[in-house]
Amino acid sequence: MNAAEIKSGPETKQIDVMESVYSRNERLAAEFNAKLTALRVFCVNVMGAPGVGKTSALARIVKLLNAPARVIEGDIESDIDSKALGALGIAATQINTGGACHLEAPIVAKAFGGDFSDGYLFIENIGNLVCPAEFMIGEHIKLLISCVTEGGDKPYKYPLAFEKADAILLNKSDLLPYVDFDLDFFMGGVRKLNPAAPVFQVSCKTGAGVGEAVEWLSERAKTVIG
Amino acid sequence: MNAAEIKSGPETKQIDVMESVYSRNERLAAEFNAKLTALRVFCVNVMGAPGVGKTSALARIVKLLNAPARVIEGDIESDIDSKALGALGIAATQINTGGACHLEAPIVAKAFGGDFSDGYLFIENIGNLVCPAEFMIGEHIKLLISCVTEGGDKPYKYPLAFEKADAILLNKSDLLPYVDFDLDFFMGGVRKLNPAAPVFQVSCKTGAGVGEAVEWLSERAKTVIG
Repeated sequence: MNAAEIKSGPETKQIDVMESVYSRNERLAAEFNAKLTALRVFCVNVMGAPGVGKTSALARIVKLLNAPARVIEGDIESDIDSKALGALGIAATQINTGGACHLEAPIVAKAFGGDFSDGYLFIENIGNLVCPAEFMIGEHIKLLISCVTEGGDKPYKYPLAFEKADAILLNKSDLLPYVDFDLDFFMGGVRKLNPAAPVFQVSCKTGAGVGEAVEWLSERAKTVIG
Repeated sequence: MNAAEIKSGPETKQIDVMESVYSRNERLAAEFNAKLTALRVFCVNVMGAPGVGKTSALARIVKLLNAPARVIEGDIESDIDSKALGALGIAATQINTGGACHLEAPIVAKAFGGDFSDGYLFIENIGNLVCPAEFMIGEHIKLLISCVTEGGDKPYKYPLAFEKADAILLNKSDLLPYVDFDLDFFMGGVRKLNPAAPVFQVSCKTGAGVGEAVEWLSERAKTVIG
């Protein structure tokens, strides 16, 4: 969603309203972020298109972290992901947006409650490579998940998510032998938008590469929650 | 995007504005659709998540159709897809939304112009399994592309696109041996939402299965443009 770009409708009025939605959300996200920091909870906004392996990544990451962790699962409908994580012994709260294409700060803060401190909070956003990148939801970092089956052109076509990512997992590396994925083209697109974010090539199916990503996450968390 | 579900901001005002955006778009889409029907142009709204193979599907379909066809390519940024189709001799017009998460009727009608009749118009929507399903853009049918690497749970998590689809391509069947895709689970989800839409298992990489989908498209087009 990018309201300023929606050209139909009474434009000025719509843009005014949407700006107030954005700025209210930004304010509430900052408040929620401050609360999490005070609780020493390191918060990760997990973004990516449908089916890139966001939940599988969280299952791998939480198991390797060796620290208290909670997950908030955002989906339009269904509790498939929170049940899958629950079956692995990972505490997960399901949000169903009933249609909305991204999470916003108030619904996330409500789902979090507050009875958790000194650990990690992962928020799996709606599977959507466009709209979630526009809304802060209290996170300390944005973790973007892409995958080799999506193709290497995604940074060029969906730039905002790649620009805003603090780290990127390039998932499904186990399928590299069977797809035409141009890593140089992908990395060229990423680096034009984002010179610094680390890119971890991983397979959340086999676990390959996830350890390095978890090490990076732990280091980053230390800078926030000590 | 689903404005009625966005709970932040001054709700009533926002919903009023968004309803006027929706209804204006619906009216303009109906007008554009009537124009296309009069020109005997059969219009297909091609939807799907990023990287499911929308452009590869169009390349295969247009080659097999044996009829005049044009493509309008919707992307947030880049002209990668229209250039790829152009290199195959397929006439493609690029729309860049600059951020917007879906196409709307006015921008599509403008990109179409009007100097085309007696054929097929394929509109490749923004790669997004959520928002495009909410907006008519002049189409006679919606063609949804899903793929086996996305996982079989997509109908359960993103119901609107599957509910509104007139036909579904289940792409990347060449990767079936390498992924855990539960076809029965997928089809169960599709059929709960959509009892009638045909589902074609295809590989747009090898061409397998595309012929049957094209046969169905041709039959459907005959009912509209004769």
